Amino acid sequence: MEAIALGGAFLGTGGGGDPYIGKMMARSAMANGGGVDVVDAADVPDDALCVPVCMMGAPTVMLEKLPNGDEALEALSALESYLGKKADYLICIEAGGLNSTIPFAVAAATGLPLIDGDGMGRAFPELQMVSLTLHNISSTPMVLADEKGNSSVINTVSNVWTERLARAQTIEMGGAALVALYPMSGADVKRGLLHGTLSLIRELGQTILDERQANRHSGDALIARCGGIDLCTARVVDIERKTEGGFARGRARLRGLDADAGREFFLSFQNEFLCLEDADGKPLALTPDLICALDADGGLPVTTESLRFGLAIRLIGLKADPQWRSPAGLDLAGPSYFGYEHDFVPVEDLNPIRTTTMQQEDPK
Amino acid sequence: MEAIALGGAFLGTGGGGDPYIGKMMARSAMANGGGVDVVDAADVPDDALCVPVCMMGAPTVMLEKLPNGDEALEALSALESYLGKKADYLICIEAGGLNSTIPFAVAAATGLPLIDGDGMGRAFPELQMVSLTLHNISSTPMVLADEKGNSSVINTVSNVWTERLARAQTIEMGGAALVALYPMSGADVKRGLLHGTLSLIRELGQTILDERQANRHSGDALIARCGGIDLCTARVVDIERKTEGGFARGRARLRGLDADAGREFFLSFQNEFLCLEDADGKPLALTPDLICALDADGGLPVTTESLRFGLAIRLIGLKADPQWRSPAGLDLAGPSYFGYEHDFVPVEDLNPIRTTTMQQEDPK
Repeated sequence: MEAIALGGAFLGTGGGGDPYIGKMMARSAMANGGGVDVVDAADVPDDALCVPVCMMGAPTVMLEKLPNGDEALEALSALESYLGKKADYLICIEAGGLNSTIPFAVAAATGLPLIDGDGMGRAFPELQMVSLTLHNISSTPMVLADEKGNSSVINTVSNVWTERLARAQTIEMGGAALVALYPMSGADVKRGLLHGTLSLIRELGQTILDERQANRHSGDALIARCGGIDLCTARVVDIERKTEGGFARGRARLRGLDADAGREFFLSFQNEFLCLEDADGKPLALTPDLICALDADGGLPVTTESLRFGLAIRLIGLKADPQWRSPAGLDLAGPSYFGYEHDFVPVEDLNPIRTTTMQQEDPK
Repeated sequence: MEAIALGGAFLGTGGGGDPYIGKMMARSAMANGGGVDVVDAADVPDDALCVPVCMMGAPTVMLEKLPNGDEALEALSALESYLGKKADYLICIEAGGLNSTIPFAVAAATGLPLIDGDGMGRAFPELQMVSLTLHNISSTPMVLADEKGNSSVINTVSNVWTERLARAQTIEMGGAALVALYPMSGADVKRGLLHGTLSLIRELGQTILDERQANRHSGDALIARCGGIDLCTARVVDIERKTEGGFARGRARLRGLDADAGREFFLSFQNEFLCLEDADGKPLALTPDLICALDADGGLPVTTESLRFGLAIRLIGLKADPQWRSPAGLDLAGPSYFGYEHDFVPVEDLNPIRTTTMQQEDPK
């Protein structure tokens, strides 16, 4: 579970929740329930009912408003009762310290198998930003549940409308809610989900753990493992953040360290890290490509809500799944959607020298 | 239908929607459907399923975002399908130009009878402000539907939570939505509903129509008919308004006319008229008592959204139902709930002289 939580937090690009809380939650459910079967998407029968469960809201709020563990089960069972049938498989909708582990907790409690895949291959702040939207799979009926016992079932005409209605309720529910959404068939899973994400998350998380065990904190082995681009190593010297519209939004100013000494960077986020620029405003990495952060001293993933003054971080760029770089993918989660003025340029093109260096250094 | 729309708008204390739109909507439904049976609450079987349908949102928005007539039916049928049974009776939840007539439109379209009663005996801005809350009848499951095809079913732990979650969605749906809520049994109807409201609304509306026919616009006959207190006649000389938090909020400054010449008044509203004060801040009428407005020149009800600079209005105070003046009723909809600093004092005690005068002048 620790590997899943850490790998999820790394691939979650700063979002998807705190890995420590996620690990504790899943461990507790697995101690009470049992082991969890993770199955290949290819092995899911076409007519099976498959349901993602996750937490929705601002990560800053999730830190203070911990799920009690039952809301996710309540969201699932409210959806089952609305649909009039039981779920056959569970799904992890995004990578994240919490959102990669909550499905394990629900799987342990219900005995349902979990599908090896997710809807993003990373984390994104809005619920329509999943590969499922690119395949015209509806996010509704969707259930939201809070810790007080309130819940709702939404049906909408589009996944963007689901985001609007669900976000408004999440805010009223206190800034975070547990949700079950995108109920889909096994056939939808095969065509719409990104496959193998949980296996990748576990491998990345295991690499982080192995390196810590060996007292190596540079992150080099992780960068090599994921084929990442070493964007910069820098210290947070200023950070603005606000929780608004149900999101944790902000921008951090970073001062370069080591090989980057003398340089300055700006890192913008909305739940997730979305845009890295240098002091001249030139982009170094842009959504939907991944901007993953490691604590430069300890080698652990850094979430947007744990970013703080004085922290030294190493930023690593990863190529997004090709679906995200398509015109439809860029419309859904590209820089302009979030109001950044840059046109999307692949992270490997924005950093040609570092990319080449990385490839030469790659031990594989 | 015209009498219902006008009487509803009068008793709606400025809220509950525009009577002209309400009348047209119900007329159109009755032309396509048929007549509507209005039945006494006492005649409803205890085990019948009875459902209020209405519009929720800011009246300023409802003026621009007219219901297409199908959303209310969709809200009802989504609730029926969630409950797994069909409604036997419809209910009008509040008095209002629109909210007293929408149930007629739905009754005409479905052939269901309508119960002679409502949940307020007036209109209030928030959905927990109904006699049903005082009788511990739940507002959920509640359905919201918009004109785009989005809908949701809410279940909550309290009627105040329903208000919060439903208001947030109403705002996202564009500021107004059609809703079906407080599904209740015939037994609940008998103990929880205010009885006879539709009959009263029709009589008041008919009085308004008769007076107009006779070219009398003073409102005297209406005041006599409803046992109202003549609060003041005055002209709007200033008005602040804003649509915020899903409500139409504001305050109007009024300059006295006729017998009130030389005096000044301040009329505050949140969808409904809630507080009338004189120039010294002394209250003249306070929620939950009713502050009803008539156009001083034409004798027609004036809604909060149609209040405008230069308009001469006659304000009439009515005693709220005794349930609203109880400690629980005042907690739910008294002056302090809305942030007014006055303790509740009955309108007849705030205006002892005018009350006496009225009673002497009462032709009955």
